Amino acid sequence: MTAAPGGRPVSAPASVDLNSDVGESFGRWRLGDDDAVLALVTSANVACGFHAGDPTTLRRCCETAATRGVAVGAQVGYRDLAGFGRRFVDVDPGELADDVTYQVGALEAMARVAGTRVSYVKPHGALYNAAVHHEGHAQAVVDAVRAYDPSLPVLGLPGSQLLRRAEAAGLRPVREAFADRGYTPEGTLVPRSEPGALLEDVDEVAARVLRLVREGVVAAVDGSDVAVDAESVCLHGDTPGAVGMATAVRAALDDAGVDVRTFA
Amino acid sequence: MTAAPGGRPVSAPASVDLNSDVGESFGRWRLGDDDAVLALVTSANVACGFHAGDPTTLRRCCETAATRGVAVGAQVGYRDLAGFGRRFVDVDPGELADDVTYQVGALEAMARVAGTRVSYVKPHGALYNAAVHHEGHAQAVVDAVRAYDPSLPVLGLPGSQLLRRAEAAGLRPVREAFADRGYTPEGTLVPRSEPGALLEDVDEVAARVLRLVREGVVAAVDGSDVAVDAESVCLHGDTPGAVGMATAVRAALDDAGVDVRTFA
Amino acid sequence: MTAAPGGRPVSAPASVDLNSDVGESFGRWRLGDDDAVLALVTSANVACGFHAGDPTTLRRCCETAATRGVAVGAQVGYRDLAGFGRRFVDVDPGELADDVTYQVGALEAMARVAGTRVSYVKPHGALYNAAVHHEGHAQAVVDAVRAYDPSLPVLGLPGSQLLRRAEAAGLRPVREAFADRGYTPEGTLVPRSEPGALLEDVDEVAARVLRLVREGVVAAVDGSDVAVDAESVCLHGDTPGAVGMATAVRAALDDAGVDVRTFA
Amino acid sequence: MTAAPGGRPVSAPASVDLNSDVGESFGRWRLGDDDAVLALVTSANVACGFHAGDPTTLRRCCETAATRGVAVGAQVGYRDLAGFGRRFVDVDPGELADDVTYQVGALEAMARVAGTRVSYVKPHGALYNAAVHHEGHAQAVVDAVRAYDPSLPVLGLPGSQLLRRAEAAGLRPVREAFADRGYTPEGTLVPRSEPGALLEDVDEVAARVLRLVREGVVAAVDGSDVAVDAESVCLHGDTPGAVGMATAVRAALDDAGVDVRTFA
Repeated sequence: MTAAPGGRPVSAPASVDLNSDVGESFGRWRLGDDDAVLALVTSANVACGFHAGDPTTLRRCCETAATRGVAVGAQVGYRDLAGFGRRFVDVDPGELADDVTYQVGALEAMARVAGTRVSYVKPHGALYNAAVHHEGHAQAVVDAVRAYDPSLPVLGLPGSQLLRRAEAAGLRPVREAFADRGYTPEGTLVPRSEPGALLEDVDEVAARVLRLVREGVVAAVDGSDVAVDAESVCLHGDTPGAVGMATAVRAALDDAGVDVRTFA
Repeated sequence: MTAAPGGRPVSAPASVDLNSDVGESFGRWRLGDDDAVLALVTSANVACGFHAGDPTTLRRCCETAATRGVAVGAQVGYRDLAGFGRRFVDVDPGELADDVTYQVGALEAMARVAGTRVSYVKPHGALYNAAVHHEGHAQAVVDAVRAYDPSLPVLGLPGSQLLRRAEAAGLRPVREAFADRGYTPEGTLVPRSEPGALLEDVDEVAARVLRLVREGVVAAVDGSDVAVDAESVCLHGDTPGAVGMATAVRAALDDAGVDVRTFA
Repeated sequence: MTAAPGGRPVSAPASVDLNSDVGESFGRWRLGDDDAVLALVTSANVACGFHAGDPTTLRRCCETAATRGVAVGAQVGYRDLAGFGRRFVDVDPGELADDVTYQVGALEAMARVAGTRVSYVKPHGALYNAAVHHEGHAQAVVDAVRAYDPSLPVLGLPGSQLLRRAEAAGLRPVREAFADRGYTPEGTLVPRSEPGALLEDVDEVAARVLRLVREGVVAAVDGSDVAVDAESVCLHGDTPGAVGMATAVRAALDDAGVDVRTFA
Repeated sequence: MTAAPGGRPVSAPASVDLNSDVGESFGRWRLGDDDAVLALVTSANVACGFHAGDPTTLRRCCETAATRGVAVGAQVGYRDLAGFGRRFVDVDPGELADDVTYQVGALEAMARVAGTRVSYVKPHGALYNAAVHHEGHAQAVVDAVRAYDPSLPVLGLPGSQLLRRAEAAGLRPVREAFADRGYTPEGTLVPRSEPGALLEDVDEVAARVLRLVREGVVAAVDGSDVAVDAESVCLHGDTPGAVGMATAVRAALDDAGVDVRTFA
């Protein structure tokens, strides 16, 4: 039995969760192919209405997720429909915690009538990015989850303030990797403004995810191997190309006998 | 032992619930004196964010309600902050049901972190009025409550489509009367456009509520007595005068030994 | 020289305006192919932000319209992003007039920085439908336009309260026909719930519009000819099929030598 | 003729503009006493709907301002009703410029039907604060104003990026001082977190404003005199106490024969 540098033993029975954003339509406006995505992933980050997602869309997403055994996660965000939650909002942490609680509860109700429940929490967009370094906003998410239901895992970036504080608060932190993002030799994401930030070759991405799952390693932008420890891999589904890539990743994992299942 | 015409026996041990709207502030905008109201009522119709109520306001209301043993009800409304939920919106009934579910769940989460729970549902404003006659919207509220938690009572106007359909669906309908509204000889509310619709004399209102509770009767606009059967009496609290009136009603009931307690 | 029954002389030099809705994207959500539509129509009903349309989308639409010599109209609606302005909202007429003024002014500013201006007003969705019969809402739109700029024409359904009241107020009423809607023998639209309400054959629709423009006549659902007097024909552009149909209509008019130009 | 240190000659005929925020109610929620404020100031910063202000409120404010000869300014803000525009939103500068244009145009329409016009632009809340140092957001406001109407002055903090960039763009920058804020010996505002940031003594504030207007000097927190060059003085009006202070300031200026008039 051998091990990749810094990675897990290659002979270990491999398993992984695949997560993706869904429920991001709003009224007349459709976004993404939720049905297609929910056939591929094992965890669905369902919008909660603050950055996207009307109640009917959320209920339908939860129904489809329930039918397919996909775990429902609350994809909480800043209150900013016009910005789709992609703009940092300098909200007071106490108010942010209440905003998060409100969103989780709203989705919980939609999940309940759909025969399922909220199984984890993942911040969306600018809140996800803020929670990497912004201590107040990271702690606000953690505070909200702990007060609402401390059994709910929190999904985030390895090394983020969010996951550190989740762990410190007794919550289960779940590390995720990104299927189509480049990594630095240090194991962080290549900034979107730099070359190699985004991978577009479907086969390459599928092979990377497979290696990540089996060996705990990906090739960094400089060609070196870097250990990436993740329980879940994030896929995109809001463009036709993204669904094609997600399909390829899922197929590669299935073909390789990887146990694709939710962490929740 | 005697009985008022159509009313309950006067010697029966009298009890009643007092309900009022709270949680209707939004961000910088304050409305009503929630603290004062929550010291007087036994059931609090807490806004859920669609017509009023930011998450922090809702949490604080629920905390105060929990401290004082006041039951928390979900005051669900149309999605219309600009109109404060007072404008009829011709929303599709299926979408309305989802909107109601979303709101109840959101408030449930705020109640949970405050140490209490949602104990009933009451429509707000234009939805309350619509649910008197509008079969689709009345049924939508009922459908939402039944799917979410069929143990939740629904508070509404006696004889309304809302309460009829709630009962038909196996939900508990709770009839309410209005402390400061005039009644017709038929027991319906005098329309706001007509004389006698609104009572402003504090002592008169207090006496009317007391008689309503003990005898099941109020004096109609034509001077005749009319039976009004209500488990709960609605008080207003969004003006200084309204709080004064609510205070007088509560004092009159307490002084008379009426058991003021929530129906929930 | 002959004339169609109730229609205009067939030898008259034919001209017509083509209008369509644009600017209905909102933030992350894209809707319709504005570029394609703005290459086909002569009047663009640009959303104003209350039912759809973020400011950046509006400015870009106005820029494209300005470049192509397309007239910009203010497509005013109820304040209802979640319902896309397709739900009747029972707003007070005085407040509705202010809402309309606000929307026209907002679009006017986007048009100004794009080098053009608002040339007419057309209600959207539920407000369009309400303004056919609802006297208060029809008058509110008219009042707003008259107070803001009485030189602005109002586009609407022939015979509607909106156009009658616009004319009575000294505004210019502009009658429109619908390219893909069936007509009753009385010249009204076949309700969407009935057979024949919607025409889907591209060639048939193009031929109908051509005859409408040249003869002032369309074939009603019962096969009889009915006079339809319209200065503008409304096309849809929010689906790929709709753009195809609009393309066919424009081509048929151009090929027939019809002068396609804005009424504004 | 003498001069205060760094200030203007004391014998010069003194004049000043007084500005205050109005129009910040929204639907059912009332905020501030616009009527009282509009009787005291010469420039009214009217909200434009993104942080506060429904169209009916804006029209009424403009009508009162027109009646009293008060200049109407567009108080533009981030799109954030829940945060009242007091939270920084990291919006793309290009989109912010469009948001500003939209708001100015919307208010312009309300002003037009009220018989007046928008005479200047002043950012609100978090946008005001951001525009002190945030180059992108300061430039966005300037770009919007220049494209819409380069004759509109921009009101802001002396030394701010906003005023520097306004001047560089050929716009007229208007410096304002704050009646009830403490100043450092360097002439900047004492941060709100520090002692002396807020002055509450009505007579002291009135005397300070009078000296500021006549001598161009205020006493800094350390007791030294500091030159403050301002064409306009900002008063608050959203609390009863604030209206009292504004009344005292206006009376002191009037009594001293200062010419209180708008800069616009």
